[in-house]
Amino acid sequence: MRKLLLIGIGAGDPDHLTLQAVDALNAVDLFVVFEKENGSELSEARRQICERFVRREDYRLIEVVDPPRDRGAADYTGAVRDWRDARARELERVLATELGPDGSAGILVWGDPALYDGTIRIVEWILEQGRLELDYEVIPGISSVQVLTARHRIPLNQVARPVHITTGRRLRDGLPAGVDDVVVMLDAGLACTELRTEPGWHIYWGAYLGTKDEALVAGPLDEVIDEIQETRRALRERKGWIMDTYLLRRAAPDTYSVTG
Amino acid sequence: MRKLLLIGIGAGDPDHLTLQAVDALNAVDLFVVFEKENGSELSEARRQICERFVRREDYRLIEVVDPPRDRGAADYTGAVRDWRDARARELERVLATELGPDGSAGILVWGDPALYDGTIRIVEWILEQGRLELDYEVIPGISSVQVLTARHRIPLNQVARPVHITTGRRLRDGLPAGVDDVVVMLDAGLACTELRTEPGWHIYWGAYLGTKDEALVAGPLDEVIDEIQETRRALRERKGWIMDTYLLRRAAPDTYSVTG
Repeated sequence: MRKLLLIGIGAGDPDHLTLQAVDALNAVDLFVVFEKENGSELSEARRQICERFVRREDYRLIEVVDPPRDRGAADYTGAVRDWRDARARELERVLATELGPDGSAGILVWGDPALYDGTIRIVEWILEQGRLELDYEVIPGISSVQVLTARHRIPLNQVARPVHITTGRRLRDGLPAGVDDVVVMLDAGLACTELRTEPGWHIYWGAYLGTKDEALVAGPLDEVIDEIQETRRALRERKGWIMDTYLLRRAAPDTYSVTG
Repeated sequence: MRKLLLIGIGAGDPDHLTLQAVDALNAVDLFVVFEKENGSELSEARRQICERFVRREDYRLIEVVDPPRDRGAADYTGAVRDWRDARARELERVLATELGPDGSAGILVWGDPALYDGTIRIVEWILEQGRLELDYEVIPGISSVQVLTARHRIPLNQVARPVHITTGRRLRDGLPAGVDDVVVMLDAGLACTELRTEPGWHIYWGAYLGTKDEALVAGPLDEVIDEIQETRRALRERKGWIMDTYLLRRAAPDTYSVTG
């Protein structure tokens, strides 16, 4: 049966690959790379990972041009789904035509395949169609959130407290009650700026985490948000794109009763 | 200056170590291992990681007997803090007396040092005392949550939706509004059982993730919770201890307006 490996490759530092991921890279006959918009640098990084870690000489690498995505659509989830289905059809076609019946294909996924990434859903879509027999496996990878906390040397959670992971879009709608630690992803415009007038928030921000361009800023939100905005603007201008994430934290109520 | 490396070693599978973690293991002169209650199996696993990956012959390994922790204390956070301070004093003493002024020490941390682990706080306590000059670095590791989602082959989040990570204790207090995806950790007694009468919840459960004893159960909460309880009871009886985690998920509202 055809086999597909979804290989988490970390957020940017090739040394964040796991031994399992390196083994998986070496089990792959055919790498499928989706060529993203403004992604030539990311595609190049993927290619370098293959060159550094794959010991066999006979692997192939196919680039699939990413279908266009309607980023202005009012129905965000619907637009994401249409885009995902177009990608899924393209992947299904490549696997059916380019991979032998016992071949192994691999997709290199930035960060962890479970966290704000659509590849698992794409594969499930292919399986649901029932046209292609396929087994698949997910190889976890270090996410940008983990690089963020490691580089800032902070725990993700306060003692026995919850952590909320959300998007910039949702942050604008407000936070659930009892949430004092928030990771914000997919934030195109530093939605946390609106919280600068709320007392007590600290921010731990990072861009291009794990890469040579890594930038880190931390401090009280109201004191450092201008610096983060300026850093972000300058970096984006220089590279043409930005990838960043951050943790917002405020002191949680200090005690938690066992009987509570 | 003395250097301390907090090395995330993954949730149980040695192949989940990153290349950075392997390099870090080989930069360490002195490994400090906290000997946990019911942890002889875990200490043994740590020792095996050193034996497999450390190429140098001249490293030392010191076991520190973990101070007792008051698990029945009414003030949970206070009890955790007392225990942490006792561990920190012990670590400070070992680093001061056993490590040369330019030596490197390493602590192997299960999972990721940022996620429900106290080691970063212990090191920060030592730095705050100001008695020992010390530089330290955090090496991220694959967490049990990532192994859970990889083994079940599920995304952690629904499209553009938040994820809430919390404890069993807090789950009993109820969930914040708008949370449909919940990772539960530190749950001694399957607190999710109380949700079995609420419609729509699915559970993805895993124990001893990444190890040879790994157990996985998934399905509608009300249909599989009895099986999970029985599996958990049997495993705990057989091994004398249990480490498990799970994701609760219910279908989220399907669309999310950009203007919302």
